Amino acid sequence: MTTNEKSLMLHEEWKGKITTESKAPVKSREDLALAYTPGVAEPCKIIAEDKEAAYKYTIKSNTIAVVSDGSAVLGLGNIGPYAAMPVMEGKAVLFKEFGGVNAVPICLDTQDTEEIIKAVTYMAPGFGGINLEDISAPRCFEIEERLKATLDIPVFHDDQHGTAIVVLSALINAMKLSDKKIEECKIVISGAGAAGIAICNLLLRYGFKKIILCNSKGIVSKGCERLNWMQEKMLEVTNLDNQTGSLADALVGADIFIGVSAPGIVTADMVKSMNDKPIIFAMANPVPEIMPDVAKEAGAFIVGTGRSDFPNQINNVVAFPGIFKGALEGRAPQITEDMKLAAAKAIADLVPESELNPDNIMPEAFNPQVAIKVAEAVKANIK
Amino acid sequence: MTTNEKSLMLHEEWKGKITTESKAPVKSREDLALAYTPGVAEPCKIIAEDKEAAYKYTIKSNTIAVVSDGSAVLGLGNIGPYAAMPVMEGKAVLFKEFGGVNAVPICLDTQDTEEIIKAVTYMAPGFGGINLEDISAPRCFEIEERLKATLDIPVFHDDQHGTAIVVLSALINAMKLSDKKIEECKIVISGAGAAGIAICNLLLRYGFKKIILCNSKGIVSKGCERLNWMQEKMLEVTNLDNQTGSLADALVGADIFIGVSAPGIVTADMVKSMNDKPIIFAMANPVPEIMPDVAKEAGAFIVGTGRSDFPNQINNVVAFPGIFKGALEGRAPQITEDMKLAAAKAIADLVPESELNPDNIMPEAFNPQVAIKVAEAVKANIK
Repeated sequence: MTTNEKSLMLHEEWKGKITTESKAPVKSREDLALAYTPGVAEPCKIIAEDKEAAYKYTIKSNTIAVVSDGSAVLGLGNIGPYAAMPVMEGKAVLFKEFGGVNAVPICLDTQDTEEIIKAVTYMAPGFGGINLEDISAPRCFEIEERLKATLDIPVFHDDQHGTAIVVLSALINAMKLSDKKIEECKIVISGAGAAGIAICNLLLRYGFKKIILCNSKGIVSKGCERLNWMQEKMLEVTNLDNQTGSLADALVGADIFIGVSAPGIVTADMVKSMNDKPIIFAMANPVPEIMPDVAKEAGAFIVGTGRSDFPNQINNVVAFPGIFKGALEGRAPQITEDMKLAAAKAIADLVPESELNPDNIMPEAFNPQVAIKVAEAVKANIK
Repeated sequence: MTTNEKSLMLHEEWKGKITTESKAPVKSREDLALAYTPGVAEPCKIIAEDKEAAYKYTIKSNTIAVVSDGSAVLGLGNIGPYAAMPVMEGKAVLFKEFGGVNAVPICLDTQDTEEIIKAVTYMAPGFGGINLEDISAPRCFEIEERLKATLDIPVFHDDQHGTAIVVLSALINAMKLSDKKIEECKIVISGAGAAGIAICNLLLRYGFKKIILCNSKGIVSKGCERLNWMQEKMLEVTNLDNQTGSLADALVGADIFIGVSAPGIVTADMVKSMNDKPIIFAMANPVPEIMPDVAKEAGAFIVGTGRSDFPNQINNVVAFPGIFKGALEGRAPQITEDMKLAAAKAIADLVPESELNPDNIMPEAFNPQVAIKVAEAVKANIK
């Protein structure tokens, strides 16, 4: 049986991957009076006076919503809210199992930006955080920005920031093995959607200077047709000498390639055209932009992918559970750039210097220390 | 320590009464590939083709949302979405513990009818049913009706229908002990809000003919000022000879009193003014419209309350878990009047004839057969 067949069979067995369970016993009339009426009126009255008390008496302290509109799911595209549920349930499973965070999958039956913002705003009182997921660009940028501006709980679009954090982690460790200076490295990011743009922003924030974004048509440059507002905005901080041309053109002399785009679009020749000791993160899933063996043969120094069956898996499961664990434990009102940088460094630091090598730049996803260390880093950066 | 003090202490300990738990193990890379990527794409693709498959592969098959706007919570009134959470969490606990139904508390930060309808509509894809809770009248009527008209999953306002079902159950058994004919009984319902109106409608549907609704000003009759649209509509089927006056006036010669209103508003003299062998369901909580001993002394034949420390507790916990259990198991698109009547009869039938007496007309809430029998009755009435 293939993985896909087995997964389908298991999904039918599970009939939903998460359950809600009670912490409060209700085996007797007294139990009922304590967990429900009349006793429940007491915490209600206190919260009615001071809504901060919601953190003391309700699930808000350790529960988030995993919200999607199903518009950009995995490699499947715009499959809608019903079909997105198995992914959001899976995400909820990972939040709980890796971070100890309760998570409720919510798939919204609208793809209208304003309506999504309203729906999330309305449901926010019962949640301690909102993890946005698989919402297509550029709507995801506006939805996240607007919700961050108005809600007093952390809002985090994992496709953007989770991915950016783990890419930065991998790059931090890759750079430890390299003799290049970060401010001199030329980076090419293939994919100018949610992940590509967030990676770009976090790398700039970390100190990288020279980044070129590419989309399926080639280099994103001034004068390109059909750029969305966010891609236009990115031109203020990327591709400063306004290079034009194809991905292949962009890669000539580049030090680092980061792919969040499409299978097989990078060739051995392109790798050969890069600067010496190139770093290749080919994260298209399940088929990377270039297969690791091909990249290595063409001279790549370090290769990472999104897959677990190759070395250097760059997977945001090492980021998001710890990020929310820390944000909730520390009652962060937002997940800031400083927290993201600290989380990336914490993830990188989980690979001890003694074990660091070109085939081992990322920590093991199942290491229980990962979420703990990430959460600590996040908490230490709450202002 | 009082119940209230103990409840507050426990709520602080629990920090939320429900958790989300994973059914899918994620202890190995293979687990991850089955519960999440890449395996999860398989059920997604099937649901994208046919959204009915959501019932086969997602939590939709056995998960409901418990939705409130916090506008009419317990006896506390309009305490808002934050303060309503402990109640909705408690309700979620009861759904799970009594009915085996997963339930997610959602408290909405809007009290605008249109916005509530939209928010619930948008979140519906991931849920198999919607339990509306503690939404003030008359908005609750429109919200429920509109959602029922557009959603293809059961929508059930428990304050209305759960209460109506258990009142009818109690009345079915009370009538077994009475020699009166249902079509001749004169019923007075005190409370013309969500519960009172739903009770009225279900009793009419069951076969009772003569019902008078009272609100805090007295008998609801033509010409009353400040009736809402639903109360106006109820005048088409209640108080057909347009009696006017106070609650005391209404009770003269009445056979049955049903109170979902305010503490202590029924006096011994009022009970004495009723027809012989009057039935009194005084369900204001925690202080009933009249205390059972006072009512009995004044000649009441059967007295029920909402409280567990008196005989004949009329509590919707014997209804709602089984209602949704049955609706979900049977994939009912709606909870119909027939299902409600069948549920009420099933609850009544749980008290064996041999044990039926004026102090024992309701089944024990903790009897595990309750939800099973109610669910069976609901399922048997799915068209």
